[in-house]
Amino acid sequence: MDSDRSGVLTEVSVQEPKANPRGKAVAGAAPPPVVISTKATTTSNPKGGWRRGFAIFDLVLRLCGIAVALAATAIMGTTQQTLPFFTQFFQFQAQYNDLPTFTFFVIANAIASGYLVLSLPFSIICIVRPHLRGLRILLIILDTLMIGLAMAAAASAATIADLAQNGNSNANWAPICQQFDDFCQSITEAVQSSFAVAVIFILLVVFSSLALRRN
Amino acid sequence: MDSDRSGVLTEVSVQEPKANPRGKAVAGAAPPPVVISTKATTTSNPKGGWRRGFAIFDLVLRLCGIAVALAATAIMGTTQQTLPFFTQFFQFQAQYNDLPTFTFFVIANAIASGYLVLSLPFSIICIVRPHLRGLRILLIILDTLMIGLAMAAAASAATIADLAQNGNSNANWAPICQQFDDFCQSITEAVQSSFAVAVIFILLVVFSSLALRRN
Repeated sequence: MDSDRSGVLTEVSVQEPKANPRGKAVAGAAPPPVVISTKATTTSNPKGGWRRGFAIFDLVLRLCGIAVALAATAIMGTTQQTLPFFTQFFQFQAQYNDLPTFTFFVIANAIASGYLVLSLPFSIICIVRPHLRGLRILLIILDTLMIGLAMAAAASAATIADLAQNGNSNANWAPICQQFDDFCQSITEAVQSSFAVAVIFILLVVFSSLALRRN
Repeated sequence: MDSDRSGVLTEVSVQEPKANPRGKAVAGAAPPPVVISTKATTTSNPKGGWRRGFAIFDLVLRLCGIAVALAATAIMGTTQQTLPFFTQFFQFQAQYNDLPTFTFFVIANAIASGYLVLSLPFSIICIVRPHLRGLRILLIILDTLMIGLAMAAAASAATIADLAQNGNSNANWAPICQQFDDFCQSITEAVQSSFAVAVIFILLVVFSSLALRRN
């Protein structure tokens, strides 16, 4: 009997009482009564409500995640800046694929966007059937992998963005943002968006875990 | 009634049958029998076994994680290299706090080590009482946060390690590993250890989620 769905657990037991323990027939006595007991236990089921609430929040988070991840991908993928002067040796043009970290950033955020889009139907199924535990666990596992991917992309790009901004005198790496200010502005926005994507994935795992509490 | 713990669900109901529906006293009849029904439902409980297995695996993973995170912290924190020559302007000495990324790396891995040590008692409780769902969810949430921290540390340090190894001609950042080869060897090992820590945290979340399957 699935107590999750009904909310009211009704148990009906029909019992034939055993014969008179004395083993004697009683003249004129009515046949032993059949005892029908109906035990209605009202298990209050407010849990389905919050579980569906979590599922709706999950869907909203995924929609936000898609928007933010696409924004991060687009900002990083389209930014480029060419300085209005050049020398014999340098072209003074900056775009994302000048640095392998930013290429990884674009690929990782594109994967995150695609995954979030593909996960939408499963999130909707979790709203319709909030007690599907296996599907939610599958989403937790995939979201966990995506935390790793999104955080790796955001952190590595943030490292390069910081280096481009401030440089490092110990390693003799000069900052480049004094020249490529627009480029640096764009990659900073993309990095912030990517951190937001990672946080969204963390929230997805946290709320999905909370939705797995005991009924 | 907690069917998880006992494995055998025993329901005892004592029912007083109602009076004779004809409403007449029967001379010489025995008093209406009290019906005592004992319903023993044997719910097979093989799941406690795999759940405890997951909990033991969780503990082993945490012990491995402590070792690897401490190794990453120690390798990165203790590595330094001083070149046997110097000029008027440069000292040619490299250690982890020359780069803020590596300082973050050491702090993050130290936090991961400390968290793993502190989480050991909870993991042991999960072995002793494998059905404690709330504690496991708490561990999932904290492990998820740690994935973010460990992955951010590993990815940012890997970015700098790659830059130290290969440089970047577009940004005019020269590689430094040709001089500081021992230093670069150490930070590569530390970065690999830190990625292993992140993977261990991911495995912890995955297996804890699987342990939350329905009974």
